[in-house]
Order: sequence, then structure tokens, then C-alpha cells
Amino acid sequence: MSIEKYVKNICINAKTASKQISCIDENAKNLILESLISDLDKNRERIISANNIDVERFKNSENFANSFLDRLLINNDRIDSIIESIKEIVLFKDPVGEIKNIKTMPSGIKVGKMSMPLGVIAMIYESRPNVTVDASALSIKSGNAMILRGGSESINTNLILLECIENALLKNKMDKNIVQLIDNVDRKIVNELLTQNNYIDIVIPRGGKNLIKLIDKIASIPVLRHLDGICHVYIDKDADIEKAINISINSKTQRTGVCNAMETLIVNKHIANDFLPIIFDQLERKNVEVRGCENTRKILNSIKHANEEDWQTEYLDSILSVKIVEDCNEAMKHISDYGSGHTDVIVTENKNTAEVFLRNVDSSSVMHNASSRFADGYEYGLGAEIGISTNKLHARGPVGIDGLTNEKFIVIGDGNIR
Amino acid sequence: MSIEKYVKNICINAKTASKQISCIDENAKNLILESLISDLDKNRERIISANNIDVERFKNSENFANSFLDRLLINNDRIDSIIESIKEIVLFKDPVGEIKNIKTMPSGIKVGKMSMPLGVIAMIYESRPNVTVDASALSIKSGNAMILRGGSESINTNLILLECIENALLKNKMDKNIVQLIDNVDRKIVNELLTQNNYIDIVIPRGGKNLIKLIDKIASIPVLRHLDGICHVYIDKDADIEKAINISINSKTQRTGVCNAMETLIVNKHIANDFLPIIFDQLERKNVEVRGCENTRKILNSIKHANEEDWQTEYLDSILSVKIVEDCNEAMKHISDYGSGHTDVIVTENKNTAEVFLRNVDSSSVMHNASSRFADGYEYGLGAEIGISTNKLHARGPVGIDGLTNEKFIVIGDGNIR
Repeated sequence: MSIEKYVKNICINAKTASKQISCIDENAKNLILESLISDLDKNRERIISANNIDVERFKNSENFANSFLDRLLINNDRIDSIIESIKEIVLFKDPVGEIKNIKTMPSGIKVGKMSMPLGVIAMIYESRPNVTVDASALSIKSGNAMILRGGSESINTNLILLECIENALLKNKMDKNIVQLIDNVDRKIVNELLTQNNYIDIVIPRGGKNLIKLIDKIASIPVLRHLDGICHVYIDKDADIEKAINISINSKTQRTGVCNAMETLIVNKHIANDFLPIIFDQLERKNVEVRGCENTRKILNSIKHANEEDWQTEYLDSILSVKIVEDCNEAMKHISDYGSGHTDVIVTENKNTAEVFLRNVDSSSVMHNASSRFADGYEYGLGAEIGISTNKLHARGPVGIDGLTNEKFIVIGDGNIR
Repeated sequence: MSIEKYVKNICINAKTASKQISCIDENAKNLILESLISDLDKNRERIISANNIDVERFKNSENFANSFLDRLLINNDRIDSIIESIKEIVLFKDPVGEIKNIKTMPSGIKVGKMSMPLGVIAMIYESRPNVTVDASALSIKSGNAMILRGGSESINTNLILLECIENALLKNKMDKNIVQLIDNVDRKIVNELLTQNNYIDIVIPRGGKNLIKLIDKIASIPVLRHLDGICHVYIDKDADIEKAINISINSKTQRTGVCNAMETLIVNKHIANDFLPIIFDQLERKNVEVRGCENTRKILNSIKHANEEDWQTEYLDSILSVKIVEDCNEAMKHISDYGSGHTDVIVTENKNTAEVFLRNVDSSSVMHNASSRFADGYEYGLGAEIGISTNKLHARGPVGIDGLTNEKFIVIGDGNIR
């Protein structure tokens, strides 16, 4: 079969299946998820041994990297946490079908809104096989059909996971095409998939910047994507020094390779002399390289100069750029000029300054006196997240089950005409 | 100046201006709108005489059409209604800046959402000069910058209207680039505009199908667009015949050239013998041509056959296709196969059937016992609408002021770290 035909078939199947899953009630959706939990539990050994094959193959491949290996690995503990995550999704209120904000208009009609599934979602992701199950469970509960395209490294693991998902669907007399996995690793498949705008309603990529850029370039379908996470922490003149230190250290060093880690520390000039030497000392002990603007280097003489490129860089590493500013306005201007709209933090005890910052900074998460590391669906109470969006439309920030729905208008009359 | 540079300048100005308008409070935004009302009122004569020039030129142009002429025309009554519409926008609650649904998480952080302007909106529209003012007022109140590209027919009217808008901005010490009008009628401008995804956050086209298709093809910016309105009315077996007749006649004939007019009438076979002869008689008196499926033609022998193409056609004219179905399921299947996701109606006294229809039909508006003609921002209480969206993401259906915002997450801590 040609790639065009292969992809088209998958898309048609997904569209048909989406009509079935969009209409069933909460109870029926939860029964599927409970079957899935029991199937995963019963197939632990098979999942782990398939994963062993993937892991061994990856260890011998030219793409080998330790950080990737960790993401690829599935063991009993990880199956436990996958199951926990599905249990949480079972507990979520049905995000579909409730009529909200209904009101009677002067014409006599009643108008409200009802949330609806988006339709067909295509998820393109690298390594992590837990995404296979998380994304499928979220998509079932939100009434969407899902087309999965995982990385070739995890293909054996994914095939067994898909078998569990299909079994759960079939056991509940549902179309197994509600979740489909593309097991053909040909890269042309992705390009073909990205232009099926008659069948697919949204593409969600999870992976490195190159994947996202490729998808942005080709896709004729809306993409829920997350590009850079150039996150800032601004230490205001009215900051509590201890909070400032704790939040800065946690934002930078709790994990460095993640999108919600701080990349640039902005410091008010009135607090710089007190704050910078202490934080520098602690960062040095954690092996973080500090680069600074001219004024920062007057206080921390030994550090390297931070240039234009530094302000624009998501290091994802133990490097931090530091800038001293006149006031909160200059801090906000720097964030607006160089930020990526992901997560930005102000540390201050001044409520007015905090309010101005919270209101005016246009990022998907804006925080007051908290670590940037909290920007996460689990920490926000969304349960499993399908991704973090830096889009300006539809969903922003961590995207949970509600981000996989949209609202239609419901009108109820009694024979009303215009 | 080259077109590239001309468009880029406009975009940079809009981006800068968007930062100013996004931050000001409700009162400041309302003062601008009130200045605009008084400027429009003072300039009535100038607006009408500029419009006269446009109207005369259009009457002598090769594109002349009576329906367009009506849309282009501005008189004192129309200025009244433009002013009324701004007064309504003044009364709207500020859609920006309120923190909603704030809750404390187990970690101790408080998480909520705050609605924010989208940033820069580009509006591409044909004729109607009232859109110039409506769109500008909506965009000011929602904190967005606006780039307007109106039709060349209305350029003289639009220039005076823009002058009023600029005056209102300047009088309130605001950047006049918060609203910009592209007065260069070169069509290449539109193509250039549609790829400025670094500056423009959303494109809203209002115009014919060809404009929308062109935009869909070229745009690298998200488009809030409305394609076809192939609207259905389904007369269930449990319908009240009188309501069925009133709703069908109103949906088809109150105005035929609009997107929320009925194009296909679907009739349950159990009610067809009673209903069809009466409705046919009334439609004939209103000069509506009826085309039907085989079963319809057994009841209405004189009518033409409705073929595959009819089910797919938005007539925007005094033509109606009629299909007889077994039950509500077949009606929903027809709507799913041929509908455009705009507006679909069920007429029934059976609450269960109505609920199934309301829940399962995936259109931007789904109605029970009301005319499809109600699908309209004004009728829904949204005030002025910026368009009707058949998108599946972000906003669906009539888009009012809230559709020009999105929500960011707000996190408030007290030094919390992860």
C-alpha cells in the first residue's frame, strides 16, 4: 500500500471511531479505562520484556543518550504510576456534554454552551512510552479519537501497550480504532499525517525543538505546541531575600533540562548588592555557571559577560544569565523582549508590584513568590497533561482534559422564530 | 517603500501599540470609546459625504451589485446604530484581567486563570464600513491592537472613520497605532500580511468563500474563519406541526442570503405525509424552489430531484433541498456527512430525542425548537460580533469580545519551591 493510502485509511478509521467515542456517557468511558487498568496490570511481564528489547536495541544504537534511556525505560514502578494516572482520569468529571451558563434572551430563546470533544487528535512524540497510555486515556475520557505516532526506539513497548488499549476498547464493544498506533517508522508518514486537515482536528507534538519546527512548517492542521521555555525570575526591590534565594535555586537547579527551569535571573538594582553575592555562592556550589550584564559583573567580578545571545537562549543546562534592572517596568520589558511566553516569576512582598506583574506579563504561567518549576499540569491539579502550550489561541500552559474539548452553543426554544 | 517594508512597519507598530492597550484599565478603555462616540457624532456629515463618493464610484464600477450597495451605504440611521453598538461595548464588563477559579493546591500554591488579550488582530473584510468601527471598538475593549484591511470600495468612508478612531486614541494619550487601516489597495498586501506570524496573533476574515479559501491557503497565522453555512432543520416524528412550519419558513425565508439560513430540511417519515404538503404550499407562495429525495417526490410529485450535489450546497438563495429519514439517527448521520458545522435544528416535543440531538450533533450552534436564524452574536447576548467561527479550536460560533481573549495561569505562592 502507498504511504498516502496507508495514512488516509488510518485517518478515515479515526474519523469514524471519533463519532462513537464522542457520544458515549461517562460511565461507559470509565469502564473502558478500568478494563485498561486491569489489562496493563495483567500484562506487566510482557510489557517489561518488550521494553527490554527496545532498551537493548537503543543501547547499541548510534542515537544512544543516557537521558533518553531513562525516558524509554519501563519497570514495575513505572507501570504502577501509569495505572495511578489512569485511575485519576477515571475520577475526573466528564468534560463533555454539560450545558453551562444557560440564560434566557429577550427573544425568549435559551442560550447556553456545551463542551464537546475536538474530534480526532494526532499525537507525535519521542521515546517515553508512558505517553502512549496517558494520551490514550485522556483522549478516551474527553471523547476524542487518537492517532499515535511514537518514536521508533519504543516501538516494541508501544505495540504491547496498544494491544492492552485495543483489548479494553473491544471488551467494551467499542471500535478499536478509537486509538490507533502508527507502527510504520517511515518518516514520510509524519509529513503525510500533517496535511490531513479533513480528518484530523489537532496535532500535538511532544519532543525536541526540531520536531516542533518541522511540524509547524508542514502542518495544515492546527498545532498545539510548545516551543521554548525561556523562563525568568525577577527579584524585586521589595523581595524577601530568603524567599528570593530559595525560589531562584529551586527554579534553576531542581532539574535543569526541563522547560520550566529558570534561564535568566532579573534583579532589581536596589537589592542586587545584598542578594547577588549570596545567590552566586549557592549557585557555584551547585556547579551552575553564571553569566551577567555589565552591572552584574561590577558585583560579581569573576563571571563571564552575558551577551544578546544569552538572553535569547534556553540553556536547558547548568548555566544562568543574570541582568540588573532599574525597576519592575524594565524587568517586564526584558521579559516581553526575550521571553518565550512560557513561565515568568516575580519575587516581592509588595502586593501592588506583584499585581502589576501578574497582570501585564503575557506568558502562559505568571507566578508570584513561587518556583517556576510549578508550571506543570499535575501541580495545577489538571491530572495527567497532554502537553504545555505556548499557543496564544485555544489552550495556554499545561493542557489537561479540558484542553481537548471546545464549546458549542446550545439554543432551546419553544417554536421561536426571528 | 517596498510592500514587504510597508507591511512590516505596520506590524511592528501594531505590536508596540498592543503592549500599551493590553495594560490599561477598564475606565481608560471606556474613555477612548466615549471619545469615539462623540467624534463619530460630530463628523456625521463628513462620513456621509465620503460614503457618497464611495457609493457613486461603486455604482459606476464593473463589480456593481445591489446587495453590495446596501452593505456599503452609510446614512444617519446607520451612524446611530454604529454608535449604539459602541455604547453597548462600553457597558460590557472588562474581559481582561480578572483572576478566575483560584484554588489552593496540595503543595500550597494558589492557581487560577486570568483572561488576556490575544495581542495583534488582523481583520480582512469586504465593503461594510460599520465593521471598521465595530471591530476597532471590540478590539480596544478587549485590549488588542487591530490592523484593518477593508475593501477598496469603501476606502473613503473608512479613512474618515479611522480619523475618528485615531482622534479618540490621541485625545486619551494613547498610541494611535492601536488601530491601523491599510489604505493601500494593492492585493499583494494581503498575502504579505498573512505570513507575519511574528507580529500578528490571529487573522479574522469576513467576506466571501474565495477570500476565506485564499487566506486559508496562504496564512501562517491562525485564522478565525467561517466557511459554509449548510444549516439543517430536522422535523422529528414527535414534532408539533405548527412549530415545525413556523421554524422551517422562518429558517428558510426570513433572509435567504445569510449563513444561518436553512439549506436542507430533513423530515421524519412518520410525519412526512402530514407535514410536507403544508410546508410545500407555504414555500411555493414564498417562491422557494423545493428539491427532494426519492421519497419526498412520492409525496410532492411536481418537484425536482435533489442529488448528491444539493446536499453539499449552500444555496444562499430561494432553493431548499428536502430529505425523508427513518429516524433521528439517520438525520444526525446526514448532518454529520453533509453539514458544515454551523447551525442545526431539531423540532420535536420529545425531550429525550432533543437531548440526544443537542448532545450528538457537532455544530457550532445546535438548537431545539428555534429558528436557525437565531445563530447570531446579538441574539446570543454577545453584543457586537467580530465574526462567526466554524473552527474547532479556540472560539466556535458567534465570536464576541471574549473570543478576542485567552487565559493565562496565575500562580501565587509564599516562597513555595518544588
